[in-house]
Amino acid sequence: MYNFKNDYSEGAHPHILQKLIETNLIQQLGYGEDEYGMQAKEILKEKIKNPNTIIHFLSGGTQTNLIVISFLLRVHEAVISAKTGHISANETGAIEATGHKVITVETNDGKLKPTDIEKALQEYALKPHVVKPRMVYISNSTEIGTIYRKSELEELAACCQSNNLLLYLDGARLGHALTAKNNDLTLADIARLTDIFYIGGTKNGALLGEAIVFNKPDLALDFEYVLKQKGAMLAKGRLLAIQFLELFKDDLYFDLAKYANRMAMKIADAVKEKGFSFLTESTTNQIFPILPKAVIEKLAERYLFYVWKEINDDLAAVRLITSWATDENKVDAFITDLKQL
Amino acid sequence: MYNFKNDYSEGAHPHILQKLIETNLIQQLGYGEDEYGMQAKEILKEKIKNPNTIIHFLSGGTQTNLIVISFLLRVHEAVISAKTGHISANETGAIEATGHKVITVETNDGKLKPTDIEKALQEYALKPHVVKPRMVYISNSTEIGTIYRKSELEELAACCQSNNLLLYLDGARLGHALTAKNNDLTLADIARLTDIFYIGGTKNGALLGEAIVFNKPDLALDFEYVLKQKGAMLAKGRLLAIQFLELFKDDLYFDLAKYANRMAMKIADAVKEKGFSFLTESTTNQIFPILPKAVIEKLAERYLFYVWKEINDDLAAVRLITSWATDENKVDAFITDLKQL
Amino acid sequence: MYNFKNDYSEGAHPHILQKLIETNLIQQLGYGEDEYGMQAKEILKEKIKNPNTIIHFLSGGTQTNLIVISFLLRVHEAVISAKTGHISANETGAIEATGHKVITVETNDGKLKPTDIEKALQEYALKPHVVKPRMVYISNSTEIGTIYRKSELEELAACCQSNNLLLYLDGARLGHALTAKNNDLTLADIARLTDIFYIGGTKNGALLGEAIVFNKPDLALDFEYVLKQKGAMLAKGRLLAIQFLELFKDDLYFDLAKYANRMAMKIADAVKEKGFSFLTESTTNQIFPILPKAVIEKLAERYLFYVWKEINDDLAAVRLITSWATDENKVDAFITDLKQL
Amino acid sequence: MYNFKNDYSEGAHPHILQKLIETNLIQQLGYGEDEYGMQAKEILKEKIKNPNTIIHFLSGGTQTNLIVISFLLRVHEAVISAKTGHISANETGAIEATGHKVITVETNDGKLKPTDIEKALQEYALKPHVVKPRMVYISNSTEIGTIYRKSELEELAACCQSNNLLLYLDGARLGHALTAKNNDLTLADIARLTDIFYIGGTKNGALLGEAIVFNKPDLALDFEYVLKQKGAMLAKGRLLAIQFLELFKDDLYFDLAKYANRMAMKIADAVKEKGFSFLTESTTNQIFPILPKAVIEKLAERYLFYVWKEINDDLAAVRLITSWATDENKVDAFITDLKQL
Repeated sequence: MYNFKNDYSEGAHPHILQKLIETNLIQQLGYGEDEYGMQAKEILKEKIKNPNTIIHFLSGGTQTNLIVISFLLRVHEAVISAKTGHISANETGAIEATGHKVITVETNDGKLKPTDIEKALQEYALKPHVVKPRMVYISNSTEIGTIYRKSELEELAACCQSNNLLLYLDGARLGHALTAKNNDLTLADIARLTDIFYIGGTKNGALLGEAIVFNKPDLALDFEYVLKQKGAMLAKGRLLAIQFLELFKDDLYFDLAKYANRMAMKIADAVKEKGFSFLTESTTNQIFPILPKAVIEKLAERYLFYVWKEINDDLAAVRLITSWATDENKVDAFITDLKQL
Repeated sequence: MYNFKNDYSEGAHPHILQKLIETNLIQQLGYGEDEYGMQAKEILKEKIKNPNTIIHFLSGGTQTNLIVISFLLRVHEAVISAKTGHISANETGAIEATGHKVITVETNDGKLKPTDIEKALQEYALKPHVVKPRMVYISNSTEIGTIYRKSELEELAACCQSNNLLLYLDGARLGHALTAKNNDLTLADIARLTDIFYIGGTKNGALLGEAIVFNKPDLALDFEYVLKQKGAMLAKGRLLAIQFLELFKDDLYFDLAKYANRMAMKIADAVKEKGFSFLTESTTNQIFPILPKAVIEKLAERYLFYVWKEINDDLAAVRLITSWATDENKVDAFITDLKQL
Repeated sequence: MYNFKNDYSEGAHPHILQKLIETNLIQQLGYGEDEYGMQAKEILKEKIKNPNTIIHFLSGGTQTNLIVISFLLRVHEAVISAKTGHISANETGAIEATGHKVITVETNDGKLKPTDIEKALQEYALKPHVVKPRMVYISNSTEIGTIYRKSELEELAACCQSNNLLLYLDGARLGHALTAKNNDLTLADIARLTDIFYIGGTKNGALLGEAIVFNKPDLALDFEYVLKQKGAMLAKGRLLAIQFLELFKDDLYFDLAKYANRMAMKIADAVKEKGFSFLTESTTNQIFPILPKAVIEKLAERYLFYVWKEINDDLAAVRLITSWATDENKVDAFITDLKQL
Repeated sequence: MYNFKNDYSEGAHPHILQKLIETNLIQQLGYGEDEYGMQAKEILKEKIKNPNTIIHFLSGGTQTNLIVISFLLRVHEAVISAKTGHISANETGAIEATGHKVITVETNDGKLKPTDIEKALQEYALKPHVVKPRMVYISNSTEIGTIYRKSELEELAACCQSNNLLLYLDGARLGHALTAKNNDLTLADIARLTDIFYIGGTKNGALLGEAIVFNKPDLALDFEYVLKQKGAMLAKGRLLAIQFLELFKDDLYFDLAKYANRMAMKIADAVKEKGFSFLTESTTNQIFPILPKAVIEKLAERYLFYVWKEINDDLAAVRLITSWATDENKVDAFITDLKQL
């Protein structure tokens, strides 16, 4: 059985393990004060083209989301998210557990548009009987594989700015977004257009790790307190730092994401050739083909994947995810199997 | 400069790195459902001598403490801790941030006794104008290097039971406690006498990782939800599992702790020989010699350590910590330097 | 300008003020231990036909909701509510501020049905990546004036029981529900079919006050702590107690609600006669006529009310609320004005 | 049995009840938008001598404390309080329940001094491993009857300002403080020297009610949201407004407090005459005589009061509280009884 369920079924890119071994016995300060972290941050600042950003390394996406949001919102403030957004759909109420409402918006493609924001602001206007919207949360790539175009992100950023809303971008799969064939955004664009974003490591070659980037240093003031308070500050911060040092020193991060995307698109092409359609228009490493249930059953004998949504009595959408570690032979085998069904 | 500031200045024991490499590309389920975790839990249950325990792996001590305590207490309930306890002194209000008061007790040796508990219960008796004490938090070894004797833990456990208090033991340095020369407790004793405890990996050879042990399975019901909600569930749970698999499959955990203790005691013996005293009676890998300030200044030229507490105009206590990775040559050099001063 | 905006524009029923005066200088114990509270609770227990209920008096609806819900839910648990439910729509994220997600369900009539619950349970099944539904919140009458029929409440209660969900009924306008012409529920039915409910005083003749009823005494254990902790325990609890003592000693509560309903129905009848329709099928003291905007504008010159929802370019729904204190002459004047438009 | 246990054993001053009756059927806007509130706020602003203050009315002291503190602190910030402070000693962990640590300081007289603050700042300096002190909480009069002198408050205010700490004064018994014989502070001084304070109504003639005063309007921005969110916004806000309107329109507030103080001092003088001492040097309406246990037992046959603290085998301190409603005849009877023992 080969696993297409997610992009964290394997360990880390070998470069990371190699660096862990090389540096293992070199004494370092704890709690994120190690020299590998300093190096990794310098490299990231260059790629982001903003020497003033403040960067911190955390362990996972839910942790990152709950800490950023609870740190930046006051008690009566709320965050707006697509209903498919990770903070709304898959984090066990992590944001609410810190005291904040997540205002959800229905979307077709997992992306928020200025009209969505304006509608939410209207619904939450009856001060003080409703929460005060203060942040917009988006994901790129989204949880359903789509990506933001530069013009879309620019419009959204302008809308946020004119409504005094912080724009926070969840980049759990930012590498996959920025290397998608229809992408026209750069890491520097992301940094310029958002207030805060994070660069996901876990789903793109790291053992663990997400890099929070505060594009406006003022927002990051005192952030270390909250890292510690929420249990996110690793004693051996070097472990997190080394993930990003290795992933970014030679653009490995983008190479790995590009490979994952290519694997997904290879399968997507085969799906299209076979005459099947998709639930969402993904150009990244998560695809959602709509297949006959009989086909799904057969494939499920050899491959692990999620049946995502029933379409009708005969059809269902499945989710297939590829990663930097996906074996191209298995992708080819899957395509062969699909063609024969 | 050699670092005696803490026991997390280096990476992981080589066995762990080796296992990470060996297993790196083997696909595993995410979120703690990997086979290495299953194996590690089986080994731990055997050592604990209780097949019914429920075990979960987390990333760090503060994270573990805040999740266990907020999961088990109801909104009006509080936890009793020594004032030196990590949750009181060093976790940036992590417990309060989850809504719970930490009732603190002054102690000489960092350990709680039944009389401390009873006094706290009396102070918090005026229902409903005060919180309801519901849990007792202890550390073994304590934050000042001391350990619980079996009789002490038995008496405390009995006191907790008769007062309907949960007993939770923070084992960030449990290995060092259980291998101290004056220890008479076993891992199975700890499991028998507490309701919940955790086995610290980070400070004893792991890259990261603490293993929570619920000795009463009922207490663990639904715990996975809270792991996810608080951002503690790593996508690649295999990373945590492998730390404990390697540390416990051959008693490596105890060997490493014993070594760390031996290094500390070697320094302690030299301190005593030199005629200096100690702030606390530590038998584990943290020692607190009281030294002339002139001596401290000299040592500080070659070694990193914390000046812990001023004693008087001439003397101060310092904290020296050793670990599984401490270089015995550096220990010897330190002793030589100390003797010459 | 006469105010039909809400049912709390006036003070209290004169009996309550009279009793406040009569008892003013009689010394009483504080914090809810006064004798008026004892008396009021006895009367309520009789009407509820359950001597074992535990009753507490609070100041307002949002306070009551947030305290009950945060007291009864564990950190990973959530409450299901209609989207129109007060906790979802009008309490400034009060429930989320205590750490709990409100799972919302779209409804036509503001009422939850077993199918709504089952659908929510399916959506929140992927343990541990989503919260655990543990409570169902309903209002009777609802925020849009509708009421539960006995059979409906029985079915909902059975559904909750079989799914291990607590059923909590917000009775901010319970009097109006139980005296509506199409009602077939009694206070004792409410107590039998729910786990917890509250009897609203503020909107039915009290200066302030809601009476929480725990139908299962075990659920109420330690509740006093949380009353105090959340700032809901009045030093002069007698103030709250006297509201309920006066409202319930002679069924004044039901008489006042019946009057309010009658005033609303009088207007509703005139609306119907005039050929206009309604947004919701209310039989209680809140009605939502759909009127031509020109008519609304004219009425707004003499009466205060909310324009609730735009229907189309010509029509909008307004909300008119009556109360125990509504002046029937003003109701008649309103009807006359409406007829002439 | 006559009750000296507290200052909330009776209802309200008759003027308040009278005003409630007079205004009962006049329609008003809800949620604090009523005209009585506007009037009361104008009167208070004049007495405070600051037309820019923002004032809100709440129901009780714990509610006020928890809302002010949780509104003004960020998640990693903490409040410093005397150990005897109400938020530390008597509010069931209300502050911690909002996520914030209360840093406590031992005092002899219940008052905080600059040296206390500086010591606390030193103890909480190890960023980010400890919380960040951001507010100082004091009470005037204190929980043990003492009051701040103008010079003391000035020094404390200066210390707070130079350390970027907000100064918040709990005035549950502010009337008693400002009318004590050794007082040299005015309401305007309090407003000038603190950032936020509240004027307690409940313990000085109101049915309920505390008036929060934000001396710096910026601090109050958005405060209404939190009032609603925490369940503190009464639908019939007129009830709270009328308390303050009546208490302040003719200095009734100060007259009532002065009377309460005079009653307490009358007893205190008798205690002194009899040769007994006091636990604290109170000049307000709470006194703590140290009496022989035999005397206490005898008095307890006719009077209700708290035995506050055991002094030794023979002696204990009791707490006696008087109020605006205390019957001078009963005070005289108590004195007579005391003299005869």
